[in-house]
Amino acid sequence: MENRVYNFAAGPSMLADDVLIRMKEELFNYKDTGMSVMEMSHRSKIYLKIFEETKDTLRRVMDIPEDYEILFMHGGATGQFAAIGLNILKGNKADYVITGNFSKKAAQEAAKYGEVHIAYDGKDNNYSHIPLQDELGLSPDARYVHICANNTIFGTEWKSFPDVKGKILIADMSSDILSKKVNVKDFGMIYAGAQKNMGIAGIAVVIIHKSLISEALADTPAVLSYELMQKNDSMYNTPATYPIYVLGKVLEWIEEIGGLEEMERRNRAKAAVLYDYLDSQAFYRPHAEKDSRSLMNVTFTTPDPELDVLFASEAAKQGLVNLKGHRLVGGLRASIYNAMPLAGAEKLVSFMRDFAKENDK
Amino acid sequence: MENRVYNFAAGPSMLADDVLIRMKEELFNYKDTGMSVMEMSHRSKIYLKIFEETKDTLRRVMDIPEDYEILFMHGGATGQFAAIGLNILKGNKADYVITGNFSKKAAQEAAKYGEVHIAYDGKDNNYSHIPLQDELGLSPDARYVHICANNTIFGTEWKSFPDVKGKILIADMSSDILSKKVNVKDFGMIYAGAQKNMGIAGIAVVIIHKSLISEALADTPAVLSYELMQKNDSMYNTPATYPIYVLGKVLEWIEEIGGLEEMERRNRAKAAVLYDYLDSQAFYRPHAEKDSRSLMNVTFTTPDPELDVLFASEAAKQGLVNLKGHRLVGGLRASIYNAMPLAGAEKLVSFMRDFAKENDK
Repeated sequence: MENRVYNFAAGPSMLADDVLIRMKEELFNYKDTGMSVMEMSHRSKIYLKIFEETKDTLRRVMDIPEDYEILFMHGGATGQFAAIGLNILKGNKADYVITGNFSKKAAQEAAKYGEVHIAYDGKDNNYSHIPLQDELGLSPDARYVHICANNTIFGTEWKSFPDVKGKILIADMSSDILSKKVNVKDFGMIYAGAQKNMGIAGIAVVIIHKSLISEALADTPAVLSYELMQKNDSMYNTPATYPIYVLGKVLEWIEEIGGLEEMERRNRAKAAVLYDYLDSQAFYRPHAEKDSRSLMNVTFTTPDPELDVLFASEAAKQGLVNLKGHRLVGGLRASIYNAMPLAGAEKLVSFMRDFAKENDK
Repeated sequence: MENRVYNFAAGPSMLADDVLIRMKEELFNYKDTGMSVMEMSHRSKIYLKIFEETKDTLRRVMDIPEDYEILFMHGGATGQFAAIGLNILKGNKADYVITGNFSKKAAQEAAKYGEVHIAYDGKDNNYSHIPLQDELGLSPDARYVHICANNTIFGTEWKSFPDVKGKILIADMSSDILSKKVNVKDFGMIYAGAQKNMGIAGIAVVIIHKSLISEALADTPAVLSYELMQKNDSMYNTPATYPIYVLGKVLEWIEEIGGLEEMERRNRAKAAVLYDYLDSQAFYRPHAEKDSRSLMNVTFTTPDPELDVLFASEAAKQGLVNLKGHRLVGGLRASIYNAMPLAGAEKLVSFMRDFAKENDK
């Protein structure tokens, strides 16, 4: 591949070379159809085959039981923040665990459609910590408990999921889905925007236990109704056909390398390169607490905000791009999603060593 | 280009060869950034340049005045059916003109959020007719009048827009936007799903007079709020970055060939090839009334539904694909959007002549 950089963006983010290569090969003429996938009617046989295979592969890769529906929806994870309220909360009460910016937004959006109880809020530690079981103030009468599995901005991740005492657990996995094995049966619903580990921006993937799908609130926009989308196999209106195809390519690649077990092994190895280095020195300060560290987003600061800026711009000159942290936490952030190769993490650590040597005064 | 077919699908549909060629060239490495556009953070400088240029080019090509906002939103045109209700209707009354399936869906969706008055419904003529001014029962107290500019399924199109007596005119132009010049000033809002003349599925483009943007209903999902999207320049959440880039490529191509004037000239020439032939013979029966014919979707039947099926399958063997009509109207449909070359229409007519000769008994 020609002059590729290591792109540490938090999302949209890097795609695996193999995925891009196949997309390019098929761009003009998908399997002798004489057309690009982008040009296919969503109701054509050839596209429906792509669509069904993508769902089947997702089911295999994540080991999704048959009593869960897979929906491809519009509006990203933010659309789902509302959809959960409109389709599941519906005037009832739910517990929201706030571990970062997106879980807060999810709670605010759901609060339009029912009673939202904040079971934990990490704002006092600037979201550097994932709560322990006894830090959660769960309500006896909550319809579900909502968490964000990985917090992109702060670089924290749930290592094991909370005991929700028989309640339904709903997880926004936008930034760590497909990075490791999870037991889908432990969740009522898992959802994710596709633009991190599932391909490109334009779809939200919803994996939902069928028992949770029922009539939505009366004024629910059609595009956010689970019942309507289930009835129409995610084609109540034209779905984002190309992002779904890209997801299929990503899933093929994950299967080929050995599935989520191998993916997790690679992700652990990559993250270890960065965290081991961070723990071995005193120049950079990691943001997340040790027990709460994300395998996907590694957040840290140099001793000085001006050095952070210099770091990002010097790194970019070496082909290590998009390392600037989110404005809410500052500093630096290396997003090392599935598509980031080990060599990218290694090159970054090598740059970090050099940068520290030059700038440690 | 290798073995391209003429794809007459109603949407998603054909892309111009020049657009696909450039997308392929830039797929691995956009302008020496070392990454694909698909991999770019929506907040990166390089992507924001693509985003702003796309908006600027759209403004130039359609001659959109500065007091109109351009929004890129999620959920396709169907998402907008609800958004119009949530942001503009808001408990008031509006007139809806029903000229086909999508205008009906628009009315049903808006009715969740206010009073919808049906100012005309063409169901008695199976939507073969665009109403004349005196067929419209407009309400004196309607906040706006909603029309669907081109009816993909039935093959009808408004030749001139109705006089709405000083009211706000809102048009769904999903299937004829960019096909000809329209005077944006005549509309309060124009919107379109992108997958016909604007590129690929995944975004809705909204062109709205700024005075129509105000606080949405309290329980409006964030992704459907015009005010929120305007405040965040369509980036309240991650937009569908690649479909926006494709729109930019499509617009570049339109500017290069000579803008909407030339586009309209080409579209008229293409449609004339088909309609002139239809009017010269008696084997095929056109669905739409002569004065209501669409430049984008040409609908017709053979004398026999079984022959319709044979027609579509025989045509496909000649590289003329996706000619089957929509289930609501049956028969055949040739969608000849901007990207369809004249040669495609000519080849289709040549096939139609041969097929009629062989099957006219």
